[in-house]
Amino acid sequence: MFPISFGSDNHSGIHYTVFSALQKANVGFCPAYGDDPLTQSVLSQLNALFGGACEAFLVMTGTGANVLSLQALIDSFNAIICAESAHINVDECGAVQKGTGARLTPIKTPDGKLTPELIAPRLMGDRDQHHSQFKIISISQSTEYGTLYTLEELKALADFAHAHNMLLHIDGARLANAVAALDTSLVEMTMGVGADIVSFGGTKNGLLFGEAIISFVPELTTNMRFYRKQLNQLYSKMRFIAAQFEAYLNKELWLENARHANAMAQLLAERLAEIPQIRITQKVYVNSVFVTMPPAWIPVLQDRFMFYTWDEARNEVRLMCSFNTLEEHIDELIAAIRELM
Amino acid sequence: MFPISFGSDNHSGIHYTVFSALQKANVGFCPAYGDDPLTQSVLSQLNALFGGACEAFLVMTGTGANVLSLQALIDSFNAIICAESAHINVDECGAVQKGTGARLTPIKTPDGKLTPELIAPRLMGDRDQHHSQFKIISISQSTEYGTLYTLEELKALADFAHAHNMLLHIDGARLANAVAALDTSLVEMTMGVGADIVSFGGTKNGLLFGEAIISFVPELTTNMRFYRKQLNQLYSKMRFIAAQFEAYLNKELWLENARHANAMAQLLAERLAEIPQIRITQKVYVNSVFVTMPPAWIPVLQDRFMFYTWDEARNEVRLMCSFNTLEEHIDELIAAIRELM
Amino acid sequence: MFPISFGSDNHSGIHYTVFSALQKANVGFCPAYGDDPLTQSVLSQLNALFGGACEAFLVMTGTGANVLSLQALIDSFNAIICAESAHINVDECGAVQKGTGARLTPIKTPDGKLTPELIAPRLMGDRDQHHSQFKIISISQSTEYGTLYTLEELKALADFAHAHNMLLHIDGARLANAVAALDTSLVEMTMGVGADIVSFGGTKNGLLFGEAIISFVPELTTNMRFYRKQLNQLYSKMRFIAAQFEAYLNKELWLENARHANAMAQLLAERLAEIPQIRITQKVYVNSVFVTMPPAWIPVLQDRFMFYTWDEARNEVRLMCSFNTLEEHIDELIAAIRELM
Amino acid sequence: MFPISFGSDNHSGIHYTVFSALQKANVGFCPAYGDDPLTQSVLSQLNALFGGACEAFLVMTGTGANVLSLQALIDSFNAIICAESAHINVDECGAVQKGTGARLTPIKTPDGKLTPELIAPRLMGDRDQHHSQFKIISISQSTEYGTLYTLEELKALADFAHAHNMLLHIDGARLANAVAALDTSLVEMTMGVGADIVSFGGTKNGLLFGEAIISFVPELTTNMRFYRKQLNQLYSKMRFIAAQFEAYLNKELWLENARHANAMAQLLAERLAEIPQIRITQKVYVNSVFVTMPPAWIPVLQDRFMFYTWDEARNEVRLMCSFNTLEEHIDELIAAIRELM
Repeated sequence: MFPISFGSDNHSGIHYTVFSALQKANVGFCPAYGDDPLTQSVLSQLNALFGGACEAFLVMTGTGANVLSLQALIDSFNAIICAESAHINVDECGAVQKGTGARLTPIKTPDGKLTPELIAPRLMGDRDQHHSQFKIISISQSTEYGTLYTLEELKALADFAHAHNMLLHIDGARLANAVAALDTSLVEMTMGVGADIVSFGGTKNGLLFGEAIISFVPELTTNMRFYRKQLNQLYSKMRFIAAQFEAYLNKELWLENARHANAMAQLLAERLAEIPQIRITQKVYVNSVFVTMPPAWIPVLQDRFMFYTWDEARNEVRLMCSFNTLEEHIDELIAAIRELM
Repeated sequence: MFPISFGSDNHSGIHYTVFSALQKANVGFCPAYGDDPLTQSVLSQLNALFGGACEAFLVMTGTGANVLSLQALIDSFNAIICAESAHINVDECGAVQKGTGARLTPIKTPDGKLTPELIAPRLMGDRDQHHSQFKIISISQSTEYGTLYTLEELKALADFAHAHNMLLHIDGARLANAVAALDTSLVEMTMGVGADIVSFGGTKNGLLFGEAIISFVPELTTNMRFYRKQLNQLYSKMRFIAAQFEAYLNKELWLENARHANAMAQLLAERLAEIPQIRITQKVYVNSVFVTMPPAWIPVLQDRFMFYTWDEARNEVRLMCSFNTLEEHIDELIAAIRELM
Repeated sequence: MFPISFGSDNHSGIHYTVFSALQKANVGFCPAYGDDPLTQSVLSQLNALFGGACEAFLVMTGTGANVLSLQALIDSFNAIICAESAHINVDECGAVQKGTGARLTPIKTPDGKLTPELIAPRLMGDRDQHHSQFKIISISQSTEYGTLYTLEELKALADFAHAHNMLLHIDGARLANAVAALDTSLVEMTMGVGADIVSFGGTKNGLLFGEAIISFVPELTTNMRFYRKQLNQLYSKMRFIAAQFEAYLNKELWLENARHANAMAQLLAERLAEIPQIRITQKVYVNSVFVTMPPAWIPVLQDRFMFYTWDEARNEVRLMCSFNTLEEHIDELIAAIRELM
Repeated sequence: MFPISFGSDNHSGIHYTVFSALQKANVGFCPAYGDDPLTQSVLSQLNALFGGACEAFLVMTGTGANVLSLQALIDSFNAIICAESAHINVDECGAVQKGTGARLTPIKTPDGKLTPELIAPRLMGDRDQHHSQFKIISISQSTEYGTLYTLEELKALADFAHAHNMLLHIDGARLANAVAALDTSLVEMTMGVGADIVSFGGTKNGLLFGEAIISFVPELTTNMRFYRKQLNQLYSKMRFIAAQFEAYLNKELWLENARHANAMAQLLAERLAEIPQIRITQKVYVNSVFVTMPPAWIPVLQDRFMFYTWDEARNEVRLMCSFNTLEEHIDELIAAIRELM
């Protein structure tokens, strides 16, 4: 048995409702590659959930969802604007460049959030053949810092993108957490603000594996299914992603799980705020808490709990909650910290 | 409920032992990306199973396993020799070219099997800068035609490859079926013949998803883990592939499933051989039966059973068995055929 | 000083008219990358020469012209049909795959020429996500065997391509030789037959360097200039390719050079036909002569003349004429052969 | 006739000595692709000029030289550190990403120069599979801002690179200008400081076209010739690049041209410094002068002289001298400016 983890929402397992759905789907024979009614039904449900004027695709991993979303919309001579801290820039081992041949233009941000003001100076107005042509603004919602774009901020970015002949991509590995935190809806947060393509993460929020890509520009993404195969994201026994998503969408499990993870992070933050030696470094919106603590504490706590140092220079660590974080996990962590005081 | 399928081994579900293993693994927290003892243990078991002088990697899909196996060993200026009917040439939407930038050199074969004699005339002996440099002979065992290389034939290909400064890759999506059919062992069929890199399929043989890559040249594949991430094949909650493989290896479930599928295909072939209007077109070694039948029968049967036409011009269809094909499924098919006679 | 060469039309130098044009252009300053009136004028002349409804692009090399012509029209999930002997398949070290990520589907031909009959069986009628989607038929005119497509054959291929939602690409490294041989015009041979994109070679026919790409689907190739830069084919001091092309087009130097090369090949073939031990293996249409000869002769002749063995097994050599082949070069070769008789 | 240009060293033509060398080489037949003694001799001369322990390759363009230098040393999962202003980051339309699939990590600099201090915080110490693996520090000497690394600074970067298991690449499109300005030698500036791979530009300094790549790690760049073909940089009539380089190396024409261009820039800067409304914004080391001037002047001057605005927001323009800039060109510009005062 592993210790309690605040290391990543990837350290969590499979929600039991999702697991039951897998079991239920494991009956008899079924056409592969999505040619089955369950997959078609789930795609329709996703379509409806995101406002009805979109097309949904099921893929295997979050990195795959990002690479495909971008590949479907760009040519190799395009450039993708992202935050320097973006998952696509930092944590995907160059999967976007490998997959698309395109250039990332990372921009330094204080909190993981891009703004039109940060982007504007980087745009080359002309169509000069020497420059990668800007085509995409890619953001994460929630961000890698656990911060959030408001709906107004999202709309401003989408409008800015469209005004400059670009498209807005949202890496929504934690989109559910964002919707929960802002108490809005998936459709308001995506189609409502003018986003063009969005991923809707499942793996970090209770699924065994599986992510959805939602294209709000289906006329531009007609080739997605070819790229999905060519970039190793087409799952043969598709019914089993579909079954998970059906459970995920049913009774808003995705939202319930995200709310729980967010609430646990709020609780954790409140409890940590009581410790004088600990400073919370980013406002807590979703399921992560960034704190600094005395450096000597870190290895001691890591003997008993999984979590990662975020910025070694600052003794900053990231504590992450997920759908299966319990109050007693937080109690144990706080107790362990209090022992160190 | 879907009808009985002889369409693909992908139409089957998850073996219940594998499913139980998933359930057992779904407890508490666990480090991601393979940094957990279950994954490490499974990698050791795979290492042992394939002779001890290799390195194993867990990936998500069969196409991914092929692309990674090749990418890890080649540069973009290399050429890969394969049969014209090879999965990498026909059924992966160009994933190898996209992933590696390298050239496939497909060779026409009568039965899906390459031989040194077929390859030799295609090799350019020199190191001319105008030509893609031959680096890999890639074969499938069993082949896409359901045929098999004998151990001697495999050894001849590996020796030929090495004599020409090339390496031998085996697409082993159905390696288990081949081992079962030849009544040999995994190690004899791979390391024993001098293969350099091999995939060991799980998805078509009872797993939910998951394939293993076995590198017998670990000194040449040290970069595999970076390519695995960059090509969208790194699974975050790796324990769940590991758990499936543990069940798959335990008591040789992989072999038992493959034997069953092969036996069902033999039975099916025997029963079909009794029908005068049906001709079996490829000797049945593993889990597929290729037959021609009166064209009028095909749509009628496809109303009740899933299966695919292989060669429309010849009225040839492919009937595939899997770990969950039952004798009564075959009885039903034969009965339906007899009704048509 | 090198011996006389029948090795390649690349062994020739620069036509003196072209050289003079370079000299004339080497005056003062000039905007780079094509933003100069000479380049613009040459592009207009090329446009007119090819029928007026096209767009011309100047590039540096023949391989570059091929890769760009294809890249501008395809996505990575597409397939390109070509003859097994095609330059893009054999002699470009995988430049197309590297540049585009797409699949080549090479087809065996008796004489380097594709036909609808050869292609038809290879087409998958559906839009299945597992298969690279056929998008281009790529041919060489004249072919690598020195053979020619008639205008009717070209039209049949273009019609076939369009009927199957594909486009026709012509590698015209030796397009001038083909026009000369068929006594037709550039526009009849390209736009007239329905070709979609064509290269018009210069380097093998008297230029220092420089090729033109002619797109008859300019609405589909608006991104060419970005790919030209991204694939290393944008020449900074563009005026110097333009100057060469101006000389090349003026008084039909391209045609005069090609006619001369073709005539020399005809003469050479006639003279060789008188040698009983020599057999001409391909009908001579353009500037190459393929012959078999006694194997002992080959190294002796290669001591005094440059030429290459084409097919070692058959003792077949290729003898190539160019714009600067002289009658006395042929006299010398024939004399040397007669000494060996 | 075009106006006088201070727009780019690409606006200059061909030095007459180089032109004569082309003429001299244009005699008879010659083997292609570098298999000729002139090319071999020039490669030997380059080898000697750069210290004898290297391997030289001739290519067609500066962008091609950069892409090839990097491709020969990296895998797609690697990262290349460069200045945000680097030509490979800004002006090559993503050629490096397209060619290599690798990630650029651009770093903001005040003056186009990287330092170990700027780089150190960006390095991930571990070999984590989620991150592109740092492999190259790529700098330009002289930089895009016309600034220079001292030999000590170069050595510090090379040492830092090697200490971190990386290699140092120098984009030497203007290496000659740097050597001239620092009054050092090519070998001291490259091998002497520990550089691993360097380009030695010709096109901007008097050649028609042609660049050399110098590899100081020839054991790591054995595949260069395949990449050169595959990335469209292999020139068929290679003797004509070789002839230009022979003239370029003879009597140090490269150095003479660079000294002249640098001296003209110094003179221009001195004359501009006398104009009160003009401010020189970067110290002038090589052949470029960056100045701000009253915005109303810029279009008036651009009517009579070619030059580009560098930073519109600051009214900053770049004035570039080349081997064929004359004192009277500067006189004319200054006179035109004085008319505006």
